[in-house]
Amino acid sequence: MTDITLIEAAQTRAKGVVRETPLLSSPFLDEIAGRPVFAKAEVLQHTGSFKFRGGWSAVSALPVAERAKGVLAFSSGNHAQGVAYAAALHAVPSIIIMPRDAPALKIENTRALGAEVILYDRAGGEKREEIGARVQAERGMSLIKPFDDAQVIAGQGTCGLEIAAQTAALGITQGTVLTCCGGGGLTAGIALALEAHAPGLTVRPVEPEGFDDTARSLAAGERTGHGRPEAGFCDAILTPMPGILTFPILHRLCGAGIVVTEDEVREAMRLAASRLKLVVEPGGAVALAAALFHGAALADGPVICTLSGGNADPGAYAAILAAG
Amino acid sequence: MTDITLIEAAQTRAKGVVRETPLLSSPFLDEIAGRPVFAKAEVLQHTGSFKFRGGWSAVSALPVAERAKGVLAFSSGNHAQGVAYAAALHAVPSIIIMPRDAPALKIENTRALGAEVILYDRAGGEKREEIGARVQAERGMSLIKPFDDAQVIAGQGTCGLEIAAQTAALGITQGTVLTCCGGGGLTAGIALALEAHAPGLTVRPVEPEGFDDTARSLAAGERTGHGRPEAGFCDAILTPMPGILTFPILHRLCGAGIVVTEDEVREAMRLAASRLKLVVEPGGAVALAAALFHGAALADGPVICTLSGGNADPGAYAAILAAG
Repeated sequence: MTDITLIEAAQTRAKGVVRETPLLSSPFLDEIAGRPVFAKAEVLQHTGSFKFRGGWSAVSALPVAERAKGVLAFSSGNHAQGVAYAAALHAVPSIIIMPRDAPALKIENTRALGAEVILYDRAGGEKREEIGARVQAERGMSLIKPFDDAQVIAGQGTCGLEIAAQTAALGITQGTVLTCCGGGGLTAGIALALEAHAPGLTVRPVEPEGFDDTARSLAAGERTGHGRPEAGFCDAILTPMPGILTFPILHRLCGAGIVVTEDEVREAMRLAASRLKLVVEPGGAVALAAALFHGAALADGPVICTLSGGNADPGAYAAILAAG
Repeated sequence: MTDITLIEAAQTRAKGVVRETPLLSSPFLDEIAGRPVFAKAEVLQHTGSFKFRGGWSAVSALPVAERAKGVLAFSSGNHAQGVAYAAALHAVPSIIIMPRDAPALKIENTRALGAEVILYDRAGGEKREEIGARVQAERGMSLIKPFDDAQVIAGQGTCGLEIAAQTAALGITQGTVLTCCGGGGLTAGIALALEAHAPGLTVRPVEPEGFDDTARSLAAGERTGHGRPEAGFCDAILTPMPGILTFPILHRLCGAGIVVTEDEVREAMRLAASRLKLVVEPGGAVALAAALFHGAALADGPVICTLSGGNADPGAYAAILAAG
């Protein structure tokens, strides 16, 4: 089970590899929000998202003999790249099982980061779990799950340790931390780190409209799905339900979920580009959208929001900037 | 005159205000360049460019009584915002004299950062120097020049101190530092800092095709202009001639200048967005363009390039990304 000891151990293993990402701000964003806003720039992490933290943590935590056989992941996006690059830096093989209809660029990037990619037919009834089980049986590779894995959550928690240190350096002891929330790995890791090192900061998960399984689950006190297909504008964070390991942590430590609209996400992406000079993908911009446009739902005081990923499709991203 | 002592004093005054910007990299860029490439992300500096370093240095170096009367600058771009924000943080007034045909967004941003903006008619024969002299006489404000100012060069040199420390931490002792070069303030400051703290790193200034006054001057051994109007794609760095203070430093310390094409700059901007998740303006991308596409002109070994500014016009920027 992930606890602060496991997170601190992940940070020790991450030293010199995982980037400490900056906490950025702009007077223009403060003015829109009516309060100080700080952006935790995880888009600057290796592979363009916080997922490298969890990938590195999980791969580096494996016993050497087991690690040497390689690692395996299912992912159509950022987790794929995070695990592939973590494996490559450890000089061990990785296999990523991706849907055949994933964006060509993400498949290409995952291969370029050193992974063997196995494509499966999402519509045609092929089960990625069956492919994964076969690969595990044949090659003895370790499966790295995207969020329901204690060492992955611990890795994402290193982002929370940095937020605790960076806010302390700014003299911030009370405030709200908004996280971009899919399966809850980043949110749970940050919440555990802040519980130990910055208990005056309250974590509030943010999701896009229609995909608010975490907000619903927090309100209901139990894991609840949103009942929608796993596809949409904020593709990086559209998990059907909070995780088995992550939800109890969220339930114990987080405030209520916040839901933002797609238009708010687009405007947050444009403001991240013009005011912070950062490329943020839709799923990575929901927390900033909440900071800027949902202030009424937040307690007074400064807000820290994760910009959790920047792997936007170039054409779609250009169109969003052009529409501003 | 700027020397390492003045730069280190500027760094002391900058502590806790000027951001230490990260040195970023991507295996995808390394592959294109065929060598390790590191990007000094000055787009993440306050006001979106390294110019805040020089502005802060100059304003903070003024005697208190003089500073209280305020500061004055001529600029259509990044220097305006850097000086305006430095003055605002010191709670002293600033006047920025800008051409009436400057982009509306840059005028608006400069005002929003606390400056009083005086517009002049560039085509109609109004002399900005006359307006400036009148303001100085009436209000006793100190003029902060964009590059030919010892304290401004010292402030830009703090970027070089950071490069020296960051490369040392990576174990890099030999290599090339490519700078985006206009009047030479950043290039001179970095060259002085590296001379003292990382003498194995050679600075090479980079300019856009047709505006290569620094490359020509270095080749000629004396200040030489490019003879073109001060307008074009890489607007932030289109000065007519190297500075009186900066050129002797460049001449003593820098290698030959490098010239890049506009198409190379556009491709570098797209790669900065897709691989580093950074918004870079044309003038801020010339050094990366040289790192990626002019390797034959460089000594072997790693390359560090400044991404010196990110204040791109949103519409033009979106069009460049869309054309990729």
